[in-house]
Amino acid sequence: MAARKRASADSTREPKLQEDTQRKPTSDESSIAPPKLGVILKLSLFLLVPYFYLVFHHYKIDKELKKPILINAALSLAGYFITIKLIPVASRRSLRRNLFGKDINKKGTPHGDVQVPESLGVVVGTVFMVLAFFFQYFNFTADSNEYFVPLNCAFTFTCFMVPPPHPMVGKRRFGNLQMEWLVEYYAALATICFMLFLGFLDDVFDLPWRSRKLILPSFATLALLMAYAGHTTIVIPKPLIPYVGLEILDLGWIYKLYMFLLAIFCTNSINIHAGINGLEVGQTVVISAAILIHNIMQIGVSKDAEYKQAHAFSIYLVQPLLATSLGLLSYNWYPSSVFVGDTYTYFAGMTLAVVGILGHYSETLLIFFAPQVLNFLLSLPQLSGYIPCPRHRLPRFDPQTGLLTGTNDGTLVNLFLRWFGRMSEKSLCIYLLVFQAIACGFCFLLRYFLAGWYK
Amino acid sequence: MAARKRASADSTREPKLQEDTQRKPTSDESSIAPPKLGVILKLSLFLLVPYFYLVFHHYKIDKELKKPILINAALSLAGYFITIKLIPVASRRSLRRNLFGKDINKKGTPHGDVQVPESLGVVVGTVFMVLAFFFQYFNFTADSNEYFVPLNCAFTFTCFMVPPPHPMVGKRRFGNLQMEWLVEYYAALATICFMLFLGFLDDVFDLPWRSRKLILPSFATLALLMAYAGHTTIVIPKPLIPYVGLEILDLGWIYKLYMFLLAIFCTNSINIHAGINGLEVGQTVVISAAILIHNIMQIGVSKDAEYKQAHAFSIYLVQPLLATSLGLLSYNWYPSSVFVGDTYTYFAGMTLAVVGILGHYSETLLIFFAPQVLNFLLSLPQLSGYIPCPRHRLPRFDPQTGLLTGTNDGTLVNLFLRWFGRMSEKSLCIYLLVFQAIACGFCFLLRYFLAGWYK
Repeated sequence: MAARKRASADSTREPKLQEDTQRKPTSDESSIAPPKLGVILKLSLFLLVPYFYLVFHHYKIDKELKKPILINAALSLAGYFITIKLIPVASRRSLRRNLFGKDINKKGTPHGDVQVPESLGVVVGTVFMVLAFFFQYFNFTADSNEYFVPLNCAFTFTCFMVPPPHPMVGKRRFGNLQMEWLVEYYAALATICFMLFLGFLDDVFDLPWRSRKLILPSFATLALLMAYAGHTTIVIPKPLIPYVGLEILDLGWIYKLYMFLLAIFCTNSINIHAGINGLEVGQTVVISAAILIHNIMQIGVSKDAEYKQAHAFSIYLVQPLLATSLGLLSYNWYPSSVFVGDTYTYFAGMTLAVVGILGHYSETLLIFFAPQVLNFLLSLPQLSGYIPCPRHRLPRFDPQTGLLTGTNDGTLVNLFLRWFGRMSEKSLCIYLLVFQAIACGFCFLLRYFLAGWYK
Repeated sequence: MAARKRASADSTREPKLQEDTQRKPTSDESSIAPPKLGVILKLSLFLLVPYFYLVFHHYKIDKELKKPILINAALSLAGYFITIKLIPVASRRSLRRNLFGKDINKKGTPHGDVQVPESLGVVVGTVFMVLAFFFQYFNFTADSNEYFVPLNCAFTFTCFMVPPPHPMVGKRRFGNLQMEWLVEYYAALATICFMLFLGFLDDVFDLPWRSRKLILPSFATLALLMAYAGHTTIVIPKPLIPYVGLEILDLGWIYKLYMFLLAIFCTNSINIHAGINGLEVGQTVVISAAILIHNIMQIGVSKDAEYKQAHAFSIYLVQPLLATSLGLLSYNWYPSSVFVGDTYTYFAGMTLAVVGILGHYSETLLIFFAPQVLNFLLSLPQLSGYIPCPRHRLPRFDPQTGLLTGTNDGTLVNLFLRWFGRMSEKSLCIYLLVFQAIACGFCFLLRYFLAGWYK
C-alpha cells in the first residue's frame, strides 16, 4: 500500500536481476505447462464413480442430508476450477520470490535444470478455506436437533433477526446438537488454517527439524482436542468381552493422547511419503476418495441421526479437499510443473486427521493410512538417528535410461524399486498409488468381515 | 524432510551467495539490535496501570470472571517474553529468504542501507494463536449457563468422559450459552488465523492491490459473520424516540453489512496508517489498551451476565494481542531493527474487528479508530484514483538534519508534519500515538456524557 515502508522494489530487484541472468533461456517457463486434465479425468472417474453411485443409487440417503452433500459437491467442483485457474498465477509470484525447487529425480536431463515453483499448496489451502467458510451459508443454521437443514443465503441472513426476550432485542438460539457441530466445524477450520499457515511458514523460513515435525502440529492440534466432544471409549471385540468383563472400555485421557498422536502422525506421514512427482497429492486424493465412500456407506446403513451427522461432517470437509487437490495434481503429475511444498502436505495431513477424529472413525483412517504407517516404520531407524539419515532419501536417477533405482534408504519408494526393479518415476508413482488404493480396499474388506464378529 | 524434493540447498544457495557479496560489511547485522525494553516499560506503565487499577481496585469483579482474566494475563505475559525471544531467530530466517526492506525514511544515512528483516508479524501471529489455543484449557469447559468457570487442565481432560445415555458411551454436553461462546471463540480464531495466513501470503507473493485490500479480508470475514449470534439492532437515542416511534430498531442484514464493512475497514486502516517506525504496532497497542479499559469498565458496572461475558471474551483475545505486540514493538520502535509486514497489520486489524463485533461494542471501537478514520478520509482522493497515487506516500527525509518534511500526499502522517512543522521520525510517531490516545480518551468522555442521554 501507499504508505508501506517495505522496499519491495529494492527487495525484488535483486532476485529479478538474478532471474534475468539465469532464466533467460527459459523465459517462456514463467507460464507453466498446461494442466494434465486427461489424467485427472481418468483418476476422477476411477475414484468418484463408485462414490456417486452409492450416493445416488445404492443407498436411500435422506433428502435433508443429500442436499447439503450435493451443494458441497457443487462448491467443490467450483473450487477445482478456481484452483486450476489460480495455480499459474501463484507460480509466477512464487518464482519471483525465489520459492522454487529443482527436480532431483531429473538431474542430468533438461528437465532437471528447470526452476519449478514451490509451495503451490497455498492455492489449495486458500481455496479450501474459502469454500469451507462459504459452505456455512448453506448449513449449520437450522434450529433442528435432529439433522442439518440446508438453507439458502437469504434465510441464513434473516434467521438471526428474530428476538425472543425483548420485543426487538435478542437473538435466536441454535439447537444444542447443532451448536456442538458448529463448535467442531470452526475448531476444525481453526486447526486446519493454523497448520496451513505453519506449513507455509516452514516453506518460506525453512524451520528447524524438531519444531517442524513435532512442536508445530502439537499446537495446531490443541484446538481440535479441546473441541472434541465425542466419546473416549473403545468397543471390546465380542470374543474378548468375557475376559475383559466390559463391552465398552472408557480410555479417558489415553484416548485423547491417542488422537493427539494420530494428528501428529497424519500431518507428518504424507510429508515423508514423498519425493516422486504426484505422490503427495496422489495419496491424498486416493485416501480422500476412500473416506468419502466410507462416510456414505455409514450414512447409508445407519439409523442414528448423530452418527450420520458425524459422517456428513467429514464429507463436507473431504469433498473440497479432494476437488482442490485434483486441481493441484493436474499440475503436479509427472512431469511436475509445480511442487506442492510442506504447505500442502501439512495442510492435507491435518485435514484428514481432523475429519477422522471429529467424524469418529480414526481406527478406519489408520487402515487407509497403511502405506504411510509402513513407510513410517521403514523410516524409523533413520528418523531416530539409529542409521545415518541423508537430507534427501530419494532413489538414484539414471539420466541415460530415465529410470530410477532403489537405494538402501528406508522408504516405501525405495522398497518398491528394490522389489519391482528399476522403473520410471511415473510408473513408480502409479504403483504406489495403486498400493494405496489396495490398502483402502483391504480396509473395506476387513470392516465387512469383522463387523459381525467385532461389534 | 528426508524425502522432500524441494531443492532447498539450491534455492537458498543463490540468495546466500548474494548475501556474502552484499552483506559482508554488515555481517554482525544478522544479530539484530537488542529490544528497546526501556521504551516498552514506560509505555506499558502508562497504558496498563489504569487497566490493572480498575481490575484490582476500582471495581469488584466476580471471582469467576477475574480468575480467567488473570490466567489469560499471565499467559499473555509469557507470550510477551516468547515473542522477544523468537524475533531475532525469525529475523535471521527472514533475511536468508530475501524478505527484507530498506528504511526509506533513513535514505542517505548509514541506517538507510541496512537490510531490515520484513514480516516479523508472523512471530506475533504464531504466538497469539498458540496462546489462544492454550487458553481454552482454562476456560469454556464448564456446564454452567450463567458464567465461565475457569478450570485446570486435569479437570478439562476428565470432564469429557462422563457418559449419559449408555452406561459407558456418550459425551457430556456443554450448556447452550457456553456453547454459543465456544462457537464464537473458534470462529474468531479461524477468521484471525486465515487473515494472518493471507497477510503472510501477501508479504511473500506481493499480491495485487484489489485482492489484497478487498477480496481477501472479505473471505476471512465470512466465518465471523456466520458465527455472529448477537443482536442486529441499534438503540435509538432517547430524544429521537418520539420521532422514530421505536426504542430499538432492528437493522437485520444492514447491520450484518455494517459489520462486514467494519472488518474490512479495520483490517486495512492499520495497514494504510503506517510508514513511520513503530506506528503500526504503536497504534495497535494504544487501541488495545483502550479496549481493555472499556471492557473492564463495562464488566464492572453491568449486572447482566451475558453482557459481562461479551466483554470478558474481548479481554481474552486483546490481552494476548497487546502483550505480543509490545514484544514486537520493542524491536520495531525507532530505529526499527525489524519491520512488521502486512502479516502484522492485517492480523492486528482483523483481531480488533473481531473483538469489536463479537464483543458487541463496534460503535465504541470506531471512535477508538478515529485517527484511522481521519487518515482514511484524507487518503480517499488518492485511493479512489481521483488524485494520482504514488507507491509510497511518505514524508520527505532530509539526511542532513535527520528531519521529516510533510508532502502533499493525503495521509495523517503528512498532515501532522504540515501542521506541527518538520520533526524527527521518533517525535512524529510519539505525536501520532498521543493523538491516538487522545481519541481514545475522547471516546471515554463521550460515552460518559452521552450515556444518560443516549440510552
